[in-house]
Amino acid sequence: MATLVLLRHGESEWNAKGLFTGWVDVGLSPTGETEARRGGRLLLDTGLRPDVVHTSLLTRAIQTANLALEAAGLLWLPVRRSWRLNERHYGALQGKNKAQTREEFGDEQFMLWRRSYDVPPPPIADDDEYSQAADPRYALLPPELRPRTECLKDVVQRMLPYWYDSIVPDLSAGRTVLVVAHGNSLRALVKHLDGISDEAIAKLNIPTGIPLRYELDENFTPLVKGGEYLDPEAAEAAIQAVANQGR
Amino acid sequence: MATLVLLRHGESEWNAKGLFTGWVDVGLSPTGETEARRGGRLLLDTGLRPDVVHTSLLTRAIQTANLALEAAGLLWLPVRRSWRLNERHYGALQGKNKAQTREEFGDEQFMLWRRSYDVPPPPIADDDEYSQAADPRYALLPPELRPRTECLKDVVQRMLPYWYDSIVPDLSAGRTVLVVAHGNSLRALVKHLDGISDEAIAKLNIPTGIPLRYELDENFTPLVKGGEYLDPEAAEAAIQAVANQGR
Repeated sequence: MATLVLLRHGESEWNAKGLFTGWVDVGLSPTGETEARRGGRLLLDTGLRPDVVHTSLLTRAIQTANLALEAAGLLWLPVRRSWRLNERHYGALQGKNKAQTREEFGDEQFMLWRRSYDVPPPPIADDDEYSQAADPRYALLPPELRPRTECLKDVVQRMLPYWYDSIVPDLSAGRTVLVVAHGNSLRALVKHLDGISDEAIAKLNIPTGIPLRYELDENFTPLVKGGEYLDPEAAEAAIQAVANQGR
Repeated sequence: MATLVLLRHGESEWNAKGLFTGWVDVGLSPTGETEARRGGRLLLDTGLRPDVVHTSLLTRAIQTANLALEAAGLLWLPVRRSWRLNERHYGALQGKNKAQTREEFGDEQFMLWRRSYDVPPPPIADDDEYSQAADPRYALLPPELRPRTECLKDVVQRMLPYWYDSIVPDLSAGRTVLVVAHGNSLRALVKHLDGISDEAIAKLNIPTGIPLRYELDENFTPLVKGGEYLDPEAAEAAIQAVANQGR
């Protein structure tokens, strides 16, 4: 049996401004910093001590990991990072205002880009100010691997090699693993773990800043489908709040 | 040719209080946080971009690395940590007031413990409140490897395997390596790099928060003995201030 803990980063500066972020490297807002520390205190209060941490290459996830680990007295844990845990690349929508995009393209197209499983937004141009073509953190990725846009299906495909090659070996060694990442890279992982269909994943939301614990059997299948949030009431309230946004 | 950058953590909460720290895991003071950010800005301003970071397992070094990297826009760098980069273990002196210790044991004994190359303080008892015997971060170290006190010679001996096995391979691969550590683990490394004698090392001080760059040849020997501080004036002033303390 192995323990996996997922933590979605807190509010970023662009969440607060209503902009599509994707791979644009914005930091946490003060609210996001508070969320991250609360996540760390939940680890401490519930006695859940990770042995190793995995993060994406994006500052908002790394800041969340650092603040949570500091609050839990665990800054010293070994940490590994991978672009494969990054947020979904939002293509040409990166840097655009969400409300304006909805007006410009209409509700149907907007929801297709946001929630369909396999329809990516248009690709971003390499010379777009919000492109990562010149970002040194991806310098070792060959061009055919570097996304210019992604749908959730693309995220599942590029995330899974990291799950199999880096996270599963840690779990197999008996380590409790903390993964600090993003709404869509974590939805991709949860889709895989819980065997959620391409249709049903559209409705799944993972709240920010609340560690989600999975106990996994010898086949890395969850003992409890959906896992267990360390603060179930706060998680339920956050999930309801998102569900109510559409009404 | 390879580039190595050394960064000593900023002022800790116990530096400010005049207590022997060693392996006791105290955080940075606000002054120390400011020093760390300045170190990061010096990297940015001089265009020196590390490819990989190594830290000790102590919070004050990790906080320094995180704040410096954040200031340099480099939080995403791969990072590795090792107890072999830890500060010197200060034995039974850990947690004791420096001025009181000096009074209690006299100047000669005090300076011998602080500055001799091969005289360690008395070992700390496992049940001392400032012992690390129960610290989970060292749980995988067998008892014979876990220090209960150290002189600088001991630090050189336990640090060098990490230099050879983890840092040199990074340098060999052409990576610019940043090491964020402590007064004594960095003195140990500089002693090795610059071939400083057991006697002369007593007088060497490395200022906090100012990155020290070494360009190394194919044998990992410095092209310029002593390396070059990214802010030479601030480094010189800090070194003079320490030298004047003894007058």
